[in-house]
Amino acid sequence: MSRHADNDAHLLDLATMPRERMEMLLERADHFARGGTVPPALEGVAVCTLFFEPSTRTRLSFQLAAQRLGAHVLGFDVSTSSASKGETDVDTLRTLEAMGVRGFVVRHGGDGAVRALAAHARPGTVLVNAGDGRNAHPTQGLLDMLTLRQVRGPDLSGLKVLVVGDVRHSRVARSDLQGLRTLGVRDIRVSAPANLLPQADELDGCTVVPELDRALDGVDVVMLLRLQRERMVDGLVASLEDYHRDYGLDARRLRLAAPGAVVMHPGPVNRGVEVTDEVVDGPQSLVLRQVANGVAVRAAVLEALLGQPPAPHWVT
Amino acid sequence: MSRHADNDAHLLDLATMPRERMEMLLERADHFARGGTVPPALEGVAVCTLFFEPSTRTRLSFQLAAQRLGAHVLGFDVSTSSASKGETDVDTLRTLEAMGVRGFVVRHGGDGAVRALAAHARPGTVLVNAGDGRNAHPTQGLLDMLTLRQVRGPDLSGLKVLVVGDVRHSRVARSDLQGLRTLGVRDIRVSAPANLLPQADELDGCTVVPELDRALDGVDVVMLLRLQRERMVDGLVASLEDYHRDYGLDARRLRLAAPGAVVMHPGPVNRGVEVTDEVVDGPQSLVLRQVANGVAVRAAVLEALLGQPPAPHWVT
Amino acid sequence: MSRHADNDAHLLDLATMPRERMEMLLERADHFARGGTVPPALEGVAVCTLFFEPSTRTRLSFQLAAQRLGAHVLGFDVSTSSASKGETDVDTLRTLEAMGVRGFVVRHGGDGAVRALAAHARPGTVLVNAGDGRNAHPTQGLLDMLTLRQVRGPDLSGLKVLVVGDVRHSRVARSDLQGLRTLGVRDIRVSAPANLLPQADELDGCTVVPELDRALDGVDVVMLLRLQRERMVDGLVASLEDYHRDYGLDARRLRLAAPGAVVMHPGPVNRGVEVTDEVVDGPQSLVLRQVANGVAVRAAVLEALLGQPPAPHWVT
Repeated sequence: MSRHADNDAHLLDLATMPRERMEMLLERADHFARGGTVPPALEGVAVCTLFFEPSTRTRLSFQLAAQRLGAHVLGFDVSTSSASKGETDVDTLRTLEAMGVRGFVVRHGGDGAVRALAAHARPGTVLVNAGDGRNAHPTQGLLDMLTLRQVRGPDLSGLKVLVVGDVRHSRVARSDLQGLRTLGVRDIRVSAPANLLPQADELDGCTVVPELDRALDGVDVVMLLRLQRERMVDGLVASLEDYHRDYGLDARRLRLAAPGAVVMHPGPVNRGVEVTDEVVDGPQSLVLRQVANGVAVRAAVLEALLGQPPAPHWVT
Repeated sequence: MSRHADNDAHLLDLATMPRERMEMLLERADHFARGGTVPPALEGVAVCTLFFEPSTRTRLSFQLAAQRLGAHVLGFDVSTSSASKGETDVDTLRTLEAMGVRGFVVRHGGDGAVRALAAHARPGTVLVNAGDGRNAHPTQGLLDMLTLRQVRGPDLSGLKVLVVGDVRHSRVARSDLQGLRTLGVRDIRVSAPANLLPQADELDGCTVVPELDRALDGVDVVMLLRLQRERMVDGLVASLEDYHRDYGLDARRLRLAAPGAVVMHPGPVNRGVEVTDEVVDGPQSLVLRQVANGVAVRAAVLEALLGQPPAPHWVT
Repeated sequence: MSRHADNDAHLLDLATMPRERMEMLLERADHFARGGTVPPALEGVAVCTLFFEPSTRTRLSFQLAAQRLGAHVLGFDVSTSSASKGETDVDTLRTLEAMGVRGFVVRHGGDGAVRALAAHARPGTVLVNAGDGRNAHPTQGLLDMLTLRQVRGPDLSGLKVLVVGDVRHSRVARSDLQGLRTLGVRDIRVSAPANLLPQADELDGCTVVPELDRALDGVDVVMLLRLQRERMVDGLVASLEDYHRDYGLDARRLRLAAPGAVVMHPGPVNRGVEVTDEVVDGPQSLVLRQVANGVAVRAAVLEALLGQPPAPHWVT
């Protein structure tokens, strides 16, 4: 059943990706990001964005990457379509596989749901996790690592990185922390209110510094996380104003970081909550570069996993 | 007005399709299904999936087929879009024709609605019925015939086929029965509760065997129909449990059929209702092969009807 | 900030478009409309239909035009998607720019919203206004001018044109009036109930003739406007019946115009309200030709603005 639910055939998370493979993907993505030729490696390959949870931004980023590689891209929006009709997720996957779809870009609300689905895929099928629950968002992790490499060069070991915000509920944070560890970053700090921190074992190798001003001291990189509005509903955050006062990044706070420190955010930004306009639109912000790198990283991932199409036999 | 609302220019149903034409389409589809080259016969041709009723699965199957042939594929989802704005169906068709769309894959809730629309199409326009009300779903009929040919070879005359379920409300059943008759199948049985049987004249040449165990005796093929949940709402079926007890196919019942009998279902399957997991996932199930054949059949149909584009004058 | 929010880089309205440029675009569009080769001028260019207000018809027309030019076309339906997530319109634009989208076809509910957005675009980005509030719908204006040229030849100066209906709330009327003036039409009449007339300064150079029968006298062209149903809700029109009685075009009224006068409507038509079936389906109606010209005009605009892609550096 779980013939190949692994990171060689698929991209499920960054936890088990060897450093060598990660660096190979980042090299290739960097080549694309700098205007290098994107080969038509997916010509004739059908790729489906299979979204059990809506996300236009991520879907379009993958779609652009796949189109540049020459793929046929199809959209299956399970969250809004009549499509599921009570069908199981596995049957949806198998039906699309039978239609000839080889690549699946899967967004799902459930932790580990993409790995579970991959266990049912047939050989030759490729799943790329486009975000599952609070678990992982590996292409976001990779694009953030690419962004750091572009700023700092390939050796990230001496970098001081601070992650700010709702780490507990964030698949982005999980994939970023995995990427940072894999690439040898040793000084990783986390700053968040206590109830937005994850269990201790998830912070292995990180230093928790609750007070943001202190945490910022001398860091090279500030990675902000998006604050979901549901955190107000579930009572974990009192108000946007409170959050901004304690964890919002403004120009004064940014001056506590190292000179020339860079600011990152996975978007979409809640302006005036996680960060002020001045900072997010300022010269130290890499937010738009992250978006650009997203397409490049996704192209590198799709090329690596789908670039060698098998013989096009539709009936198996 | 009805210049060419016929099956030479369009594919509206299987009722009037000559056996020769059906076999020609199935030969071509079989070639595609076995990995044969799909020519770019629709390069530069715009094909619109015009769905007055939603169906992601059927839409994607047609989209994949059209894309493989090199078409530009557009989606017009009338059911959910603001698009109709009180416009008549005919005005929608004419507007898209005027934009240069030549092929229309039409799904509609009304019986005969696609034929009615075809009567208003201008010469050169092609309509393919992707399911209209309870009337017809001709590409489903063709893909089921293709699946039978792959199992049995081109001569289906000696086949014993059983159709199980809601024949009364099923466009799939109507197209399957037409296909079976055209290809010379003589032993066609139908098993369903009395209130899910159609009028007698629709069962011409079929043997009705209400009790499923008896009906299964020695058949080579079991074609299951999807049970729409609305059958519970309208009181024609008491409960899913009752239906499964009387008409659900399980391993015990399947042993009543001929050795090596095959099981078909148009999908999506209600697992545990029309069929058990064991059977639908078992070696006698052709459900995924049907899905694969769907793309091949649709490619053959689109190629046959749209493969010769007229001169590209946009203004007529 | 407003580096290039102008009509050289973008198409925002027709108010400031020089006659020479308008005639150049119409020549090119006419070439396309008559079946002339559409070059793959947008190969490798990503174009996004960014619709803050839904409009399937306009979206598909632009999509067909962009596809014929070889572009990758993406859809971002802000009105129905989860996409905005509280993000500002400018951040949405910048995110898509960062992903590598170069062309934006923007529909927006706010007057002047597309121009405002264009002020934030980076160099090389192209915005085409696909309708903003009551302000402008420049490609509709251009396609109407193309339609007139096809009927009358390039010199429109002697034409007598009547615009009927809700000029006050109509972006189509605004763009048509600008087009007519630019191309030297001198006899422009407007007929509408008093409360559907715009402020006097917008009718510069037009003759207001409230009574339709009198207004029609000897005109060569009747441009009907769509009556939005909201005009009933806001009380500006008593009923569809009243409107039709006073401003609906029927065969009797059409005989008051010049022999061979032509009838235009931007669609979708409210049959029996703005116009009778007999007239809209009759030989003097140009409604479907307008639709066909829409694709040709949009192809000409996209080619002119996006035909020379800059070097494909994704990171800037």
